[in-house]
Amino acid sequence: MQRYFLDNNEDFIVGEDYFHIKQVMRMKPQDEIEVCKKDGCYLVQISEISDKVYFHIIKPLNANQPLIHITLIQGLGKSDKQEIVCKYATQFGVSEIIFVPMQRSIAKYDDKSIDKKMDRLKKIALEAARLAHRDEVPEVTYLEDIKKIKNNFDHRFIAYENTKETTFLDKVLKLRHHERIALVIGPEGGIDEKELSYLKTQGFTTVGLGNRVLQTEIASLYALSVIDAFMQTINS
Amino acid sequence: MQRYFLDNNEDFIVGEDYFHIKQVMRMKPQDEIEVCKKDGCYLVQISEISDKVYFHIIKPLNANQPLIHITLIQGLGKSDKQEIVCKYATQFGVSEIIFVPMQRSIAKYDDKSIDKKMDRLKKIALEAARLAHRDEVPEVTYLEDIKKIKNNFDHRFIAYENTKETTFLDKVLKLRHHERIALVIGPEGGIDEKELSYLKTQGFTTVGLGNRVLQTEIASLYALSVIDAFMQTINS
Repeated sequence: MQRYFLDNNEDFIVGEDYFHIKQVMRMKPQDEIEVCKKDGCYLVQISEISDKVYFHIIKPLNANQPLIHITLIQGLGKSDKQEIVCKYATQFGVSEIIFVPMQRSIAKYDDKSIDKKMDRLKKIALEAARLAHRDEVPEVTYLEDIKKIKNNFDHRFIAYENTKETTFLDKVLKLRHHERIALVIGPEGGIDEKELSYLKTQGFTTVGLGNRVLQTEIASLYALSVIDAFMQTINS
Repeated sequence: MQRYFLDNNEDFIVGEDYFHIKQVMRMKPQDEIEVCKKDGCYLVQISEISDKVYFHIIKPLNANQPLIHITLIQGLGKSDKQEIVCKYATQFGVSEIIFVPMQRSIAKYDDKSIDKKMDRLKKIALEAARLAHRDEVPEVTYLEDIKKIKNNFDHRFIAYENTKETTFLDKVLKLRHHERIALVIGPEGGIDEKELSYLKTQGFTTVGLGNRVLQTEIASLYALSVIDAFMQTINS
């Protein structure tokens, strides 16, 4: 079932989604789609396709919102790594992705290209949210300095290979529904010692994500999976 | 540190790795590399580069072997999906990947191309094992029918969105080190009802991997992460 995200509470669809329904999917009146409005997601039936796609609601859909709010603070990686992060972390339930150039980031964005690149990444997150049947799209932003991160989290983690800390699951067992979690993943070369020291002064602690070396673009999926699996358990 | 896998216990390197060390990495005697022989992995120093790369062992490396044996039985997906599976599931600790054409697989391999395709996928798994600093390379094979799977597992799971079963973590908590786990992931269209019935007669049970829809090529990462995180805990 196709899912469309509206940024209002109207009973019609315009813009790119209108084009997608009419021209790409070639839908007709009576066809059913899923629509996420500002107040929730619904199964709807298309009633008319003219200057807009008009629909009426069949029934509200079960809420599929994350049980916990995870902000991924991702060191800027090479070329297409950011796209992979947006695509897969969205499917694994991340609520927010902040891309930050870090000491060892090889790629840097110049000021002129940031908006265009972020627009593309937001679109990838939107498409991934649609495929994953999520009710909302993760926020995707760019921050030019890790020191500018708004530190309003209940728990703060840094993925770090060389940590001697306790196992990750032990830390996860302390999390509770609706808390705000920050997870920092370094770029390809890892996190620089100075950045690590700075983050520690901000209350971040290192965690090991298993004992293999994970590539930067998928390392977050390990953490997101384990946290999600535990959240499902305390929900049940 | 570069890591090379030898299929013997000799103190020299030939073939593609010889070429890689000499021509691509342009290494010299005294340079250090990691070598995984049949009996384990070692930090070694190159002593001579002539017709072969000769080395001597500096010290054995800590074993980085999986604590549990997971066989991923992956329904054949479209085009490059198999490559993504080999690359990422290897980093997340899978021991064996079996690709199987399933009822809803759109791509089918013809008999002539299977060997060539499997060779390529094995190389991707080898490269991923190297990057992840794993001690061994997952076995990658192709099986033309799911009914031919050798059913020698301690636990058998099918990832299934519509399951009403208990949460995944509850099942994972029953696993123990060195057990053999099978995990079936369907192709893009999911698992067909008949396949599901057949697998159930073979002792497989459905598990839900969170409440979002994961794409076939990365769904296994959720299961691999949660199992690994728990294995680390009972090891500690």
